[in-house]
Amino acid sequence: MEEKRKREEGRKRRTLSRRELFPLAGKVAVGAAGLSVVTAGGLALGCGSDDGDDTSAAGGETKAATSASTASEWPWPYETLDADASMPIAYENWFEKFCCYATVSGIVEQLRKSVGEPYVSWPMDSTKWGHGGAVGWGTLCGTLTGAGIVTGLVAGEEGEDILNDVIAWYTTTELPIYQPPEPKAQITSTSRSDSPLCHVSVGKWMKKEGVKFFSDPRKDRCARLSADVSAKTIELLNQWIAGSYTPTAPSQIKKNEVQMPAQDNCTECHGDSVPASPGI
Amino acid sequence: MEEKRKREEGRKRRTLSRRELFPLAGKVAVGAAGLSVVTAGGLALGCGSDDGDDTSAAGGETKAATSASTASEWPWPYETLDADASMPIAYENWFEKFCCYATVSGIVEQLRKSVGEPYVSWPMDSTKWGHGGAVGWGTLCGTLTGAGIVTGLVAGEEGEDILNDVIAWYTTTELPIYQPPEPKAQITSTSRSDSPLCHVSVGKWMKKEGVKFFSDPRKDRCARLSADVSAKTIELLNQWIAGSYTPTAPSQIKKNEVQMPAQDNCTECHGDSVPASPGI
Repeated sequence: MEEKRKREEGRKRRTLSRRELFPLAGKVAVGAAGLSVVTAGGLALGCGSDDGDDTSAAGGETKAATSASTASEWPWPYETLDADASMPIAYENWFEKFCCYATVSGIVEQLRKSVGEPYVSWPMDSTKWGHGGAVGWGTLCGTLTGAGIVTGLVAGEEGEDILNDVIAWYTTTELPIYQPPEPKAQITSTSRSDSPLCHVSVGKWMKKEGVKFFSDPRKDRCARLSADVSAKTIELLNQWIAGSYTPTAPSQIKKNEVQMPAQDNCTECHGDSVPASPGI
Repeated sequence: MEEKRKREEGRKRRTLSRRELFPLAGKVAVGAAGLSVVTAGGLALGCGSDDGDDTSAAGGETKAATSASTASEWPWPYETLDADASMPIAYENWFEKFCCYATVSGIVEQLRKSVGEPYVSWPMDSTKWGHGGAVGWGTLCGTLTGAGIVTGLVAGEEGEDILNDVIAWYTTTELPIYQPPEPKAQITSTSRSDSPLCHVSVGKWMKKEGVKFFSDPRKDRCARLSADVSAKTIELLNQWIAGSYTPTAPSQIKKNEVQMPAQDNCTECHGDSVPASPGI
């Protein structure tokens, strides 16, 4: 019941117009405590010092901007985007700063135009580190790190369901799907990763395609995959903002027998003798 | 030589005072193109529309704020922090929004006080999704996702070396180290993960401690580990801002025989028959 009530509150909030949510948008107020500004996108900035924190914020709820010197609007405003339009943006931007940045840019470059602040000032470049599963460690595919960063900013804690669904889709789908009109390299294979790990995902594709990591076809595969994840994330965010999104994938922690954070491909690492619990 | 020149330029830039870097800080300028604001922290905000993007930004270089309607200062300003002070912040905040948020908060709560904007307005809460290796998928430990997000904002592309070193340290160190003065649960074990993966890292510790994932000792271990990663990240960022940081760990992609994103624990998943290249 509590979950249902939260969802209904979230839906109600999301149907408010930006003007209703951010009545001070575009106006500058100089208060006794110092200069305070609410920007066009509703981001409240205080130029004085702030000893507070926002750890008490309830997930999915937007704070009232009654105290502009301390308030920060979160989640950030979102408007329905064109999933198809994100794909060439992400594809091209992969060749600038790789997968995580590319996926973020496919979404945020559009939000900079349609929403404006705070997206204009937020440095997309700061997400580049996600490439190669975190600066080359082969962990979470950078496209999914990018999806996590954006859904966290845009949809708050409700974004966790969206990210969970994007990851589940990623692991079970033959990728890449996107066909760039002017590809920088030709590729012939698609592969199903059964894992959100860069190492596993790109490794399976490389094996199928018969190419090395430092090859043009591999780069093109990852650029196309960035386009795919940008578009999928937008597809779910659009459903969410419209109030029609229903989470699909169950929690990874609670679904498996060992009741801990895990993928769905136990035997790939553990062999056939997967313990019901990790030796406990 | 190019690398050396870049480092020298970076060091020179980092020794500039905030006033030199952000001469307009705290002033409001209303230009012909619309309202433009440069906040105390140097974040330039444009309230008009912006068709540009920042993909052409060179890593580690700060853009001149000559056009406040489009410019975005990146990397964000950093001042030397107290690594020890971050530990209780991160530890306590784990119990609010888990590992990724906790690690971020240990650093950013201090920056909100010492630097101010843009940290005050940036929603730390948006990072919660990193828990459990990305909403429970067991991939990159959320503490390291948090370190990635912060180093990306604070140190730009130079932050990648710092993150790489933090991950290398994480995988080779007996953790947790932090001893909270008033722990919420008693734990007895430390463990070396040999992996940045949540599933592997927490799984090894759970096995050694003999506890389940949904147990108070496991929660305390992850809270303490968040404190450790916050402090380690600050230690390296402090070296970096002082100009004394030298990257230690080599690139994961280039160091191993298969030349692809990977950890250093091949045999844990592949057994003893690790292929020199993935079947290519």
